[in-house]
Amino acid sequence: MNAPTKFEVLEVGYNVPAAVGMDEKDIQTPALVIDLDALEGNIRKMGDWAKAHGMRHRVHGKMHKSVDVAKLQMDLGGACGVCCQKVSEAEAFARGGINDVLVSNQVRDPQKIDRLARMPKLGARTICCVDDIDNVADLSEAAQRHGTEIECLVEIDCGAGRCGVTTTPEVVAIATAIDAASGLKFGGIQAYQGAMQHLDDYEERKTKIDVAVGMVKDAVDALKAEGLECDIVGGGGTGSYYFEGTSGVYNELQCGSYAFMDADYGRILDKDGKRIDQGEWENALFILTSVMSHAKVDKAICDAGLKAQSVDSGLPFIFGRTDVEYVKCSDEHGVIADPDGNLKVNDKLKLVPGHCDPTCNVHDWYVGVRNGKVETVWPVTARGYAY
Amino acid sequence: MNAPTKFEVLEVGYNVPAAVGMDEKDIQTPALVIDLDALEGNIRKMGDWAKAHGMRHRVHGKMHKSVDVAKLQMDLGGACGVCCQKVSEAEAFARGGINDVLVSNQVRDPQKIDRLARMPKLGARTICCVDDIDNVADLSEAAQRHGTEIECLVEIDCGAGRCGVTTTPEVVAIATAIDAASGLKFGGIQAYQGAMQHLDDYEERKTKIDVAVGMVKDAVDALKAEGLECDIVGGGGTGSYYFEGTSGVYNELQCGSYAFMDADYGRILDKDGKRIDQGEWENALFILTSVMSHAKVDKAICDAGLKAQSVDSGLPFIFGRTDVEYVKCSDEHGVIADPDGNLKVNDKLKLVPGHCDPTCNVHDWYVGVRNGKVETVWPVTARGYAY
Repeated sequence: MNAPTKFEVLEVGYNVPAAVGMDEKDIQTPALVIDLDALEGNIRKMGDWAKAHGMRHRVHGKMHKSVDVAKLQMDLGGACGVCCQKVSEAEAFARGGINDVLVSNQVRDPQKIDRLARMPKLGARTICCVDDIDNVADLSEAAQRHGTEIECLVEIDCGAGRCGVTTTPEVVAIATAIDAASGLKFGGIQAYQGAMQHLDDYEERKTKIDVAVGMVKDAVDALKAEGLECDIVGGGGTGSYYFEGTSGVYNELQCGSYAFMDADYGRILDKDGKRIDQGEWENALFILTSVMSHAKVDKAICDAGLKAQSVDSGLPFIFGRTDVEYVKCSDEHGVIADPDGNLKVNDKLKLVPGHCDPTCNVHDWYVGVRNGKVETVWPVTARGYAY
Repeated sequence: MNAPTKFEVLEVGYNVPAAVGMDEKDIQTPALVIDLDALEGNIRKMGDWAKAHGMRHRVHGKMHKSVDVAKLQMDLGGACGVCCQKVSEAEAFARGGINDVLVSNQVRDPQKIDRLARMPKLGARTICCVDDIDNVADLSEAAQRHGTEIECLVEIDCGAGRCGVTTTPEVVAIATAIDAASGLKFGGIQAYQGAMQHLDDYEERKTKIDVAVGMVKDAVDALKAEGLECDIVGGGGTGSYYFEGTSGVYNELQCGSYAFMDADYGRILDKDGKRIDQGEWENALFILTSVMSHAKVDKAICDAGLKAQSVDSGLPFIFGRTDVEYVKCSDEHGVIADPDGNLKVNDKLKLVPGHCDPTCNVHDWYVGVRNGKVETVWPVTARGYAY
């Protein structure tokens, strides 16, 4: 391994935005800041909901990529484990002590399969998804090579249009192959409807999930007829968990964004037509930014641009302010309309990012604050672990 | 400093995509791959152009955030130094041995000003921009406190609509204040027109730069009348350097993207109406991605989604292929239209990212390849250094 290292001693203002004990006002910007009270409240609330509805909750670690947040979700929210999307992420969680990890994705590259097969040796129950019968032999061979067991879920594409098979016979064929393969264990079904989570209208979301539930129920029944029981029937996100969770078909939820919230999720409506960030969930994640130029009277320039967030799902909004608006994002700057000239240089603002997942992946650190003080600085453990 | 560390031993497939000497085909995906021949060609070409036109070239390090690439630009391309956008980035370059660093941005936060004032002690000429006379006293005080000198350029907003003043009297007033301040040296003018770089039409870009050149000339002349000479009149990007570079007013270029190229820049047209990625510059930067699902006949799913790139300026295109197209990007996946079913699982594709700067900032490593082998693995030195 001849690659050089970029890692240096941590120093506030150079490669880390804050230190524990510091006043919130001294955090170096731009930085990801977590309101710990809001985070803990969201985690408890979802945990309580899952418990009350007899559902397991396998929290989606791909959203935050943080061992610390995942542990909080297990400790405070009763989560049964995590799911994530990459083998390297899964390893980061397993190495961090999470003992039940689902890669809710396909694993096809031979080196990635090999790493996955070694993961149980880190002490973690290891689960992945399969949507192609050709994958079964490769996974089986790797598990046998390492003397481990990989649990496999058959992935159904129930509307997201990405990975996954679309018919019950395909599900049964793959499940049967998994069940017969040495080193593998048939674990059930993965059926996450990712494409409907962000539809604003509650009934529109429900209609899409009804279709998904129908597909999944058909597959579960057909598997049962073949003697194959599903330990896991997993899916459900922040915009739909109440549908899967009361379907009588799913038994594991996989919510991620509820813990942090973001602008794109926040604007979807609950069954009463109310934005979900105005009652159901609290905004816990913010990009703290500073005004660093105000050379024009009606326009402030802040220090959070495209390298502090992802704008794929729209621009951030400014938390708690209606007098100013984040209107444009370039590489290093945000342009803030300030028609009344209310802002001045070095004022700090809290941005709610458009989309939390890829925004978290841009940052190395979460700064956890409570009562105006930095209580913790957590690494974004699996940031950049995309392999 | 109580922050924990996330940094572990480097391991291919976990937190680094490749090792030196490995075959290109074994690189773990998704990864940023650099075609070293193309990179070196681009660097030499721009260096030759600058030299032939009597211009200094201060390469824009914010694009790549890499000490290794910057050194190559100085060694092969005769660059005089780097510019970048954040103090923490500037420190990374200075610590890496780059001895002439411009923060082409405002520095207002007291802690950032203090760090900037300490930067000359790292051995680097230290330059920053000013667009507010109130900033002068703070910079001066910090430089005196540390016994250093900060060179200051007055930033003119010549069309980008972000930081910078817009009138010659403002330029003269700030320059005069800098010139009078202990610990500071008046260095000249910063006038980068960022808003026109991506206009497709050559003449349209020229029209915008003509306006900028007019503003800058007026300011330079007015400063001269006050006895203030501009050592640096800086600006110019990949879409405009031939305008600033032949203006007779600018003397330093600040190009970044020419070295790597991307889809958004690639489509702008040169004076002959030809895309600049089809002759002027070569694509040197790619996101290497693998097909990891093909459960539908006409659609392949690859492993490069929003966490492997920024799509703010559009989707990537697939290099060297016209039979398949990257049509959709979600957090972890890309959807590739494959109407003829030409792709199979584990096939690798080279994506040209929509926008190189924020795409590089998502990755920790550049994998440099030549003749099918990994020749180098460079850290993205200042990745995440946003402070």
